[in-house]
Amino acid sequence: MQIISVSLGNRSYDIEAGSDNLEHIGSFLTAFQPISTAVVLTDDNVIQHGYAHRVADSISETGIDVHLLSVASGEQSKTIETAATLWETLLDEGIDRKSVLISVGGGVIGDLGGFIAATYARGIRFFQVPTTLLAQVDSSIGGKVGIDLPKAKNMVGAFLQPLGVLIDTKTLKTLPDNQYRSGLGEVIKYGVSLDAELFQFLENNAEKINIRDLAILQQIVSDCCRIKATIVSEDEFETTGRRVLLNYGHTFAHAFEIQSHFTLLHGLAVSIGAVCAARLAVRLGLVDETFLQRQLCFHQNLKLPTEIPNNIDWRQTIALMRHDKKSEFGKLRFVLPTDIGSCRLIEDIDPQILERGL
Amino acid sequence: MQIISVSLGNRSYDIEAGSDNLEHIGSFLTAFQPISTAVVLTDDNVIQHGYAHRVADSISETGIDVHLLSVASGEQSKTIETAATLWETLLDEGIDRKSVLISVGGGVIGDLGGFIAATYARGIRFFQVPTTLLAQVDSSIGGKVGIDLPKAKNMVGAFLQPLGVLIDTKTLKTLPDNQYRSGLGEVIKYGVSLDAELFQFLENNAEKINIRDLAILQQIVSDCCRIKATIVSEDEFETTGRRVLLNYGHTFAHAFEIQSHFTLLHGLAVSIGAVCAARLAVRLGLVDETFLQRQLCFHQNLKLPTEIPNNIDWRQTIALMRHDKKSEFGKLRFVLPTDIGSCRLIEDIDPQILERGL
Repeated sequence: MQIISVSLGNRSYDIEAGSDNLEHIGSFLTAFQPISTAVVLTDDNVIQHGYAHRVADSISETGIDVHLLSVASGEQSKTIETAATLWETLLDEGIDRKSVLISVGGGVIGDLGGFIAATYARGIRFFQVPTTLLAQVDSSIGGKVGIDLPKAKNMVGAFLQPLGVLIDTKTLKTLPDNQYRSGLGEVIKYGVSLDAELFQFLENNAEKINIRDLAILQQIVSDCCRIKATIVSEDEFETTGRRVLLNYGHTFAHAFEIQSHFTLLHGLAVSIGAVCAARLAVRLGLVDETFLQRQLCFHQNLKLPTEIPNNIDWRQTIALMRHDKKSEFGKLRFVLPTDIGSCRLIEDIDPQILERGL
Repeated sequence: MQIISVSLGNRSYDIEAGSDNLEHIGSFLTAFQPISTAVVLTDDNVIQHGYAHRVADSISETGIDVHLLSVASGEQSKTIETAATLWETLLDEGIDRKSVLISVGGGVIGDLGGFIAATYARGIRFFQVPTTLLAQVDSSIGGKVGIDLPKAKNMVGAFLQPLGVLIDTKTLKTLPDNQYRSGLGEVIKYGVSLDAELFQFLENNAEKINIRDLAILQQIVSDCCRIKATIVSEDEFETTGRRVLLNYGHTFAHAFEIQSHFTLLHGLAVSIGAVCAARLAVRLGLVDETFLQRQLCFHQNLKLPTEIPNNIDWRQTIALMRHDKKSEFGKLRFVLPTDIGSCRLIEDIDPQILERGL
């Protein structure tokens, strides 16, 4: 088991990454007494694997009253309507300001639960138990919570750092293959754009990654959490420019996701977007062809997509990227690699460079 | 004009209280450039008096792009439905993270606008231009923002401190009488429970208060802001027990408001609640009969209600107070006066004392 500390000004919290450790939640939470009630939020898919019940039982054993709530699985639950239902349920169940909300699930449950915790009674305490690879290496760390609007993902939300994050890598064993690959898309991001040592480790262990070797996965998850924790510590509210470096491949990915009506999973879109970003970096002379080939080969070894799907229109992609939430005044900006493990933000790129295609 | 500073850890912001100063908003805001867009949120009642347009015009003159949005006036707009409409409108109008939302109106507009600002795109900057007495002396100061659930007021929200607060006391001239009296209910709270000097000033100027003398009003508004700013500075997130002292009369008031289905205005409920609290304090020996008579006389001079309306049930009032958002485990707790200008929180009061009536 590894403990990673996230330091934020005068506060800090721990990420505990281990295997078969869901039962640690009870003792993890007791450090934050008094707790009047624990609300465990999960989804109809995660609940079938017993993870939410193991978390609930572990909390119950400490004597804390537990309420288990489950919503439909998938992005369809990250809506104003589900938020409204949850707010009213918490009120009906007498949840007060001394309660804690614990999200047990993937990115949707983490984001939704965090938004409810950030806003119910002007804020109650929050805890994350991510059970997908994408949530374990990325979305559960950093305090970004929120819901979608019909026309834009994550458009309503808050920054809410949790009391702690408990990761059980054994939950990855039950993850469907496309969900697992989607998580690997974010893992690649950390290696290629932020940490050459991690990239090397991933390259050396592609086989074990593909068979979901638990020891390897725990190492990877811990490394990704450590990288993200460091960056979030330096830029909690995305204002200093550090945090934007977590977005390798993401400008392209968002445009692909929108055009696929979100049927393309986020991490798979990031995988394709990371290849596009590498090609753009070659075009701009930031890296050479060897870099691109090494990255492409690596994606292939992890069975990650590298080509833009046929139903994605390139002109539409460029138009969407110019109006990305993170762009300003229609300018194109990308996080591009300068070497394995390093990257920088390149702003105001001439659209003509993209129009010719990559 | 008076400037009151609200200090919060490593941040601070200014409250500017003056008369005929709505046009200062433009120069007030320019200190916070770059601002991509200013969204002025108001209601259909306030807009008729021209206040929102004066604010919008003043901002326009600085070259900042302004969008004016108006919702129906009254508590009916502090809902999830209105919030959803506003979030989508902001998205459609291309409001980004460098925008500022300015609430121009009473408590509903301040609370609603603040909640939208706290959550849209994970938070944009916020500015308050309160135009009712209640908002100027109380709700615009302190960072509490939120919306109602069908069964509970202010149940969904956040703490969001504004960039600044601009108060034009001349807007009080157009306030309907019951709204003005409602504001005075909160003013009385400050005098009786927190500041003997203010109480003396109010007693000496009852006549001028009743004719809405602007010089007197400006003094009163500034004093109330200063008192609240000090308490908020000491207890931003309502965790140290200081902020609860702003709730003189409020435990009773909330129970009255609920039973009236919110047809009884908040400040009028506080006025009646403050008399109930004074009677309870006499019963407990915290103050003597002279205190009560002085307070009663003062309420009467300001034409503020002192008696519980006929449609309010006393047993129901006690039951509701035991389940107030601020109560714990069914205990009764009240902020009670110990002298003019001072008070303390009394917890776990024997219900039998109340059951006999006050």
